[in-house]
Amino acid sequence: MSKYWSPAISQLTPYVPGEQPKVDNLIKLNTNENPYPPSPKVAEAINHYPKERLRLYCDPDATALKQSLATHFELPYNNIFVGNGSDEVLALAFMAFFRQDKPLLLPETTYSFYDVYCHLYDIDYRQIPLSDDFKIDLSLYDQPNGGIIFANPNAPTGRLTPLAAIEALLQKNTESLVIIDEAYIDFGGESAVELSRRYDNVLIIQTFSKSRSLAGLRIGFALGHEDLIAGLERVKNSFNSYPLDSIAITGAVAALEDVEYFNETTQKIIDCREWTSEALTQLGFDVIPSKTNFVFTRHASLSGADLMQYLRSNNLLVRHFSKPGIENYLRITIGTQQEMTTLIDTLKQHPSL
Amino acid sequence: MSKYWSPAISQLTPYVPGEQPKVDNLIKLNTNENPYPPSPKVAEAINHYPKERLRLYCDPDATALKQSLATHFELPYNNIFVGNGSDEVLALAFMAFFRQDKPLLLPETTYSFYDVYCHLYDIDYRQIPLSDDFKIDLSLYDQPNGGIIFANPNAPTGRLTPLAAIEALLQKNTESLVIIDEAYIDFGGESAVELSRRYDNVLIIQTFSKSRSLAGLRIGFALGHEDLIAGLERVKNSFNSYPLDSIAITGAVAALEDVEYFNETTQKIIDCREWTSEALTQLGFDVIPSKTNFVFTRHASLSGADLMQYLRSNNLLVRHFSKPGIENYLRITIGTQQEMTTLIDTLKQHPSL
Repeated sequence: MSKYWSPAISQLTPYVPGEQPKVDNLIKLNTNENPYPPSPKVAEAINHYPKERLRLYCDPDATALKQSLATHFELPYNNIFVGNGSDEVLALAFMAFFRQDKPLLLPETTYSFYDVYCHLYDIDYRQIPLSDDFKIDLSLYDQPNGGIIFANPNAPTGRLTPLAAIEALLQKNTESLVIIDEAYIDFGGESAVELSRRYDNVLIIQTFSKSRSLAGLRIGFALGHEDLIAGLERVKNSFNSYPLDSIAITGAVAALEDVEYFNETTQKIIDCREWTSEALTQLGFDVIPSKTNFVFTRHASLSGADLMQYLRSNNLLVRHFSKPGIENYLRITIGTQQEMTTLIDTLKQHPSL
Repeated sequence: MSKYWSPAISQLTPYVPGEQPKVDNLIKLNTNENPYPPSPKVAEAINHYPKERLRLYCDPDATALKQSLATHFELPYNNIFVGNGSDEVLALAFMAFFRQDKPLLLPETTYSFYDVYCHLYDIDYRQIPLSDDFKIDLSLYDQPNGGIIFANPNAPTGRLTPLAAIEALLQKNTESLVIIDEAYIDFGGESAVELSRRYDNVLIIQTFSKSRSLAGLRIGFALGHEDLIAGLERVKNSFNSYPLDSIAITGAVAALEDVEYFNETTQKIIDCREWTSEALTQLGFDVIPSKTNFVFTRHASLSGADLMQYLRSNNLLVRHFSKPGIENYLRITIGTQQEMTTLIDTLKQHPSL
């Protein structure tokens, strides 16, 4: 606290990201990172980038990356926005679209950065409960609002909301914007990108951090009608002209172009998720059906906090949220088959399992 | 324009960065980039960075870079903040400190991103005129305010404000924060970092884009009292947890540690600036005394816009601002000696010179 702070700053509750441990011997299943390295084409592209060019500003429009995304998604160039990770894209989108008189609607349990943005921009919001089995019921969002946001699949639950329900929402909710955070869509979900071609009231946000294994390079993007992208560009260019550095642009293009590697690694993660879900079920865990690179799970007779500690003491790092209603769940990232076998073997050795 | 935009968005006038031409045959003296490549240690560090680690999130605190900066400036670790270029650091600082009831004070002619931030955050501001020879007179800032910001040396004028005048301001202005944007301080200016050890009402912002030749890697930082840094961290962690990617952190540390290369290249630029200023003067130009890597200059009998066009038609790109009062000036980045010789030779061939 300082008398020099803007008055609103002392009210903020910043987002707390999952731990990035400084030690190397842990099996890290706590921040939904991809267990496989990025495409070898990324290393090649970064190593070949002429470093003497770093003296020059990067392209403020990241044209090369937007063109790659346009080709990849078969969308016009001006339907694409890029930013420094999907968190920055979300932060700019909240500013561009959700500072409205009516409240923003969002799920009660979802990505916990959303309400942080609301506090940052003084946006009124209403949390809509999930069903008992953690489904998002979009019919509950049919009420006056200044915008709607949800993650699909949702985090930390892993649940997918069907595209038909999303389209029904877009047909009804024509006076405000619907943002769909598809950070985990590539692990078996069906993207709403198709809907963005036909509806101007939906913005899709995706990331290179999960399915493209580039969490360390900070690349996110948004897809939607050109008027929405123009709104995002106005805010971005009033905040920071060059959020993507030249190396990040280069690495992202290389990752996007290696479709074969992407298909192979995402399929391995999907297969391992199914194996892990089955193995956890056999150990007496409830596993919420996941379409992501993590599972959300609890054991009927063990507390989430205790289980997390037990795993940590065995060098396995998983994520636990103390939030009421989900305090007995663990969110476990899908690692390699070997890592998940170690997880299951370790759980089997738990005295109560 | 779209009905989905937040109402304030249509009022924004985004910042327009200097052109990054897509052709290669231009001598680019328009965006104050360093003519020398970054230290060879940067390329080495980036090439050796294990690219498979990019699957992991970067360190959200950029600890390695903050530690390097702490060592370099002999400051405590918690007096240091880092961000995605000094533009992002400025954007976060305006949010953290300048949303006050009283107006922000800033020079009438200065870095044109400052009033863009004011519009973005709805901050009331008052522009204080420069003297006729473009000096910042800090005694004019002794009036009620919610904060003060200026660049030192100022841009686009290149003028340095003496440290004694800054200290006098800090002694009088104890109820609001003074931010000093030292983007160009390493080209012969005296930094206020020393003052930040003794005054808690000053924040210094610097960048790796100019003197460290890393405009393409996006690294900026702020130095000041730990309570100021804590305010910046609150905003940053409510906006984007990881603005600096792993490669940028690695490259920045390598650049900072190569003090010898830094000294050598900044001295070459300073020497060439003095040569260029003298040569322009001999051609009948007024040259504002510069402590930056650019000169701000006009010719008594030629319009700035015409001169810019003449240079552009000879493959020399310089910056011209159409703002009244400086519309006949050009801002010319100091390139290599060879580039500046070409500039002077080209000017000599102008029919009216």
